[in-house]
Amino acid sequence: MSAITGQDNDALRVNGGRLWDSLMQMARIGATKNGGVTRLALSDEDKQARDLFVQWVQEAGCSVRVDAMGNIFARRPGRDNALAPVATGSHGDSQPQGGRFDGIYGVLAGLEVIRSLNDAGVQTLRPVEVVNWTNEEGARFAPAMVASGVFSGVFALEYGLSRTDGSGLTIRQELERIGYAGADIASYPIHAFYELHIEQGPILEAENLTIGVVSGGQGQRWYEGDFSGQAAHAGTTPMNRRRDAARGLAAVIELAHDIAVAHGPLACATVGSLQVTPNSRNVVPGRAGYTLEFRHPDEDILAAMHAALKEGVTGIAARLNLGSSLKQIFSYPPVVFDSRCVGIVRAATAKLAYPFRDIVSGAGHDACYINRIAPTAMIFIPCVDGISHNEREDISEQWSTAGGNVLLQSLLHSASS
Amino acid sequence: MSAITGQDNDALRVNGGRLWDSLMQMARIGATKNGGVTRLALSDEDKQARDLFVQWVQEAGCSVRVDAMGNIFARRPGRDNALAPVATGSHGDSQPQGGRFDGIYGVLAGLEVIRSLNDAGVQTLRPVEVVNWTNEEGARFAPAMVASGVFSGVFALEYGLSRTDGSGLTIRQELERIGYAGADIASYPIHAFYELHIEQGPILEAENLTIGVVSGGQGQRWYEGDFSGQAAHAGTTPMNRRRDAARGLAAVIELAHDIAVAHGPLACATVGSLQVTPNSRNVVPGRAGYTLEFRHPDEDILAAMHAALKEGVTGIAARLNLGSSLKQIFSYPPVVFDSRCVGIVRAATAKLAYPFRDIVSGAGHDACYINRIAPTAMIFIPCVDGISHNEREDISEQWSTAGGNVLLQSLLHSASS
Repeated sequence: MSAITGQDNDALRVNGGRLWDSLMQMARIGATKNGGVTRLALSDEDKQARDLFVQWVQEAGCSVRVDAMGNIFARRPGRDNALAPVATGSHGDSQPQGGRFDGIYGVLAGLEVIRSLNDAGVQTLRPVEVVNWTNEEGARFAPAMVASGVFSGVFALEYGLSRTDGSGLTIRQELERIGYAGADIASYPIHAFYELHIEQGPILEAENLTIGVVSGGQGQRWYEGDFSGQAAHAGTTPMNRRRDAARGLAAVIELAHDIAVAHGPLACATVGSLQVTPNSRNVVPGRAGYTLEFRHPDEDILAAMHAALKEGVTGIAARLNLGSSLKQIFSYPPVVFDSRCVGIVRAATAKLAYPFRDIVSGAGHDACYINRIAPTAMIFIPCVDGISHNEREDISEQWSTAGGNVLLQSLLHSASS
Repeated sequence: MSAITGQDNDALRVNGGRLWDSLMQMARIGATKNGGVTRLALSDEDKQARDLFVQWVQEAGCSVRVDAMGNIFARRPGRDNALAPVATGSHGDSQPQGGRFDGIYGVLAGLEVIRSLNDAGVQTLRPVEVVNWTNEEGARFAPAMVASGVFSGVFALEYGLSRTDGSGLTIRQELERIGYAGADIASYPIHAFYELHIEQGPILEAENLTIGVVSGGQGQRWYEGDFSGQAAHAGTTPMNRRRDAARGLAAVIELAHDIAVAHGPLACATVGSLQVTPNSRNVVPGRAGYTLEFRHPDEDILAAMHAALKEGVTGIAARLNLGSSLKQIFSYPPVVFDSRCVGIVRAATAKLAYPFRDIVSGAGHDACYINRIAPTAMIFIPCVDGISHNEREDISEQWSTAGGNVLLQSLLHSASS
């Protein structure tokens, strides 16, 4: 085996059919009757999926290492193994009744890149790694992205291992049970990290594009608020004597929408959870609680949205004669990916002639944490109707192959110098 | 004992202190730690309250009859017992953690009228009856007012007896268990029926009035509706691609309010119960259900409100690109009380020099059903802050006494000819 030239590398493509077959084979593990998967982190199904991944990367000639958070690192050697590797990967866990592609697509596309490099007899300068991160979803153990967070130094190892599921089991216990508890957490220099993922939103498909070049991730601010009025008899309380907390709710739903539109097109605002009390058809609601979240890639805009929310809620409470509380319970700063890595993805996509656009990730991903310790970028492919975290989640084989090719070319570029 | 003259009867007053003492004694049965009562229909507490009522009316010389729905009829004989009696009464059951006056005040004020007639040695022409209606609240057995409804021919006896509570027990079973299952349902001619009740609303107190002369009851229309959009990721779905069912909810809350205000001051509209799906902070609501009810004393206005609602909801769904369903699930026509009985109450109140106004009942009452088979009117007294169905429900002894006096004079008037 000898290194082929840069010219030849540009012509390299993944085997899209093989990638698709691997995706379909993996989707049998934890398959649900409606075409999705339930493969919660560190469940028996997750163990089966991990075992299959390990078998496949070993068959592809990789060495395998598991760290203390159960992250699996598969390494294909380079010409100079003293150099920092280039890496790719995503997660193998799913939401309950989740989709067949969220996470695992990025893992198996990494595997496919290695298989394709093997087929072509390409020897890269730097080692190439494929990582399967533990518990990205946070569906079983909160918080989400806890294991890439530990790897990146966002969380302490002890914190990560002590996270519990709904029945009180810890990540440590479950890692030991399924045989994926490594000895230590081994963060190390990574030359470049690329995560390939489905968009989980409707933009690419709607614009008939195949690739999203992800420039960063939206910052998030999460709030919990409530309005308090006076619960009252629906028949005996005249309209002008009511202090109806549901009207506060109605106003804050529109306020949130207006704030996002005013900071469009990138701003998002969602009032996702509501609760009125006493929630009886014949009682004017005395209390109304809500959650609200803002997302935007620019921290200054988020701050402006925050100020508009505070002011708006105060105005609503005054106008409707309601008490009000509003608390920011969580914030996550915007992520800006490494401009060089983003440029490599963009150039690879353009050279492959896939229709693309730059895009900002609205969701959190392991790459958002890895970005703190290594030059990082992400690649999106569309998903049907923008649907994810749902058994109906779907992609086309053509999109799958295109994402694999962009990942292959980006990794090749970063691994060559 | 001989009949006293009309002139003397005008001077008759109830013993307000004794009425208050009876209220306080009764309030010990099912007392809650926050000053209310829990005396659900046909519970052990309801049985104790019934036993005490029966003891008191028997001590006052009344004969007692219980019908097949457990309604208790206490009769004080008149000079001509072949004449149809005049009757008063209300209910002894309460809401869970309800108040000390809702219902039972009208029952014990009737008892106090009889005690006062006894004290004054008044013999009326017609018999006077005090009725304790079963399960007015509907809190344990739906529907509300089921036993006065059976008495009035609104419901069949078998329907009434077969109503079940949350644990599957029927009214029949529970009447037998507590010893209040009479042999038959004995509807009979009633010359006039008066129900004295707390307002359960804020109007009288706010206007510094002591008595409400109730001219009728609001009609009601109950609806269940929902909006359906598309559940979507809160971070990856741009605002202009959302079909957010919560925005439909916000719009319908304001629509209902606007319709009621447009038909003010008597119209009421309440969106009391809300449910969004999936109700997660990070998911745009794909579905939002709500209940809505309208009340107004005029059927034509209710029809206009209904039409405005249908049109408004259609407009909301079109504007927000949502699916929508709206179903009227219940309607209750406006109640117009007997003008002669209402006039008797008004005249008695004026003669007693209590500040008063005519008022429409926003709530349903047993009198609304009795009105279908006998000339009927109601008398309201204020309650503090308009609060009812709540342990904080409260009245003053002064209001209590005033209501008792109006009831006494109204019954005396109707019983005298």
